[in-house]
Amino acid sequence: MVTLYDYLDSGNGYKIRLLLAQLQQRYNWVELDILANETRTPGFLAKNPNGRIPALELADGTCVAESNAILWYLAEGSPFIPDDRLARAQVLQWMFFEQYSHEPYIATSRFWLQHKPDSPEKSALLASKRDGGWAALKIMEEHLAKNNFFVGNYSIADIALFAYTHVAHEGGFPLDDFPRIQAWIEGVKAQPGFVSMI
Amino acid sequence: MVTLYDYLDSGNGYKIRLLLAQLQQRYNWVELDILANETRTPGFLAKNPNGRIPALELADGTCVAESNAILWYLAEGSPFIPDDRLARAQVLQWMFFEQYSHEPYIATSRFWLQHKPDSPEKSALLASKRDGGWAALKIMEEHLAKNNFFVGNYSIADIALFAYTHVAHEGGFPLDDFPRIQAWIEGVKAQPGFVSMI
Repeated sequence: MVTLYDYLDSGNGYKIRLLLAQLQQRYNWVELDILANETRTPGFLAKNPNGRIPALELADGTCVAESNAILWYLAEGSPFIPDDRLARAQVLQWMFFEQYSHEPYIATSRFWLQHKPDSPEKSALLASKRDGGWAALKIMEEHLAKNNFFVGNYSIADIALFAYTHVAHEGGFPLDDFPRIQAWIEGVKAQPGFVSMI
Repeated sequence: MVTLYDYLDSGNGYKIRLLLAQLQQRYNWVELDILANETRTPGFLAKNPNGRIPALELADGTCVAESNAILWYLAEGSPFIPDDRLARAQVLQWMFFEQYSHEPYIATSRFWLQHKPDSPEKSALLASKRDGGWAALKIMEEHLAKNNFFVGNYSIADIALFAYTHVAHEGGFPLDDFPRIQAWIEGVKAQPGFVSMI
């Protein structure tokens, strides 16, 4: 059985929990407190030298890191990754968009709002994240004008983007002006095997 | 024939040029001046709503964006992506590492050093990128202690990481203390069909 190293409030970790539930795959779950630096111990750094959750440990002890690479590993051969070559690349396109143009703005703002005391540094960081976060949501809204899901049917591209988008308001990005994103969120929640984040 | 929208000095664009050369695949090349906002015109935003190069336009007009998704699209079925399921996930792991933990530090520092006038903002940004850039290089150096390439034989994981690592000194990250990265750079340069960045 695989073991997921995770932190309950992490959207990146939730991606894996959601896919595993929808694959009906059992797993061991180990929570590490990122606030107490439990991902920076020698033991965990031997599993993932980048010191981040989620990490998926396979039965033979091999670890796969990076949430979207873990999604790909688990979903290969399932309906959660399309068969078509172009569609597969488009799934990856949205997953790289998520990690480069979405998560660093929306998830980072959410983390600072939830966990950091008020300070000039916090104010400056949050201010620096506004334009990028809104830009990512605008791109998603426009894409969803012509698509129910990001690439064809529901896929790991939707899982990757759902994780931090459905809690974007907790990062200071309420979705009131994004009706198509709201409809897509309901579409994801209606998928078989859906589980909520916490 | 495919068309690559690109900017000559972009490492992200260079990834695609290098792979296309090694695949011996011909392509049209269109340079857009990112400094003159040529990636923000309505015409280009219709191709890539995220307004970034590289973007690969297929013969039917479909565009694929995100450098590492383009690499995956072009390399599927070639020796530049391994066949094994775990190895494929590890290739993606290093490519997500590159976009999240490497490029935002090293490539961004290089861009600001090359293109932005001195200012307190520039100094603050460069300072904020130091720890992350060195951390990424340290993780690469440790991995290369036991591996000639990032996942098995030379793959698109190496191409993705090579692009900004071999010019890391231009971002203020000289590689003198990273002998294994230096050896790996020579190993990449020795691959058949290698082309340099500029």
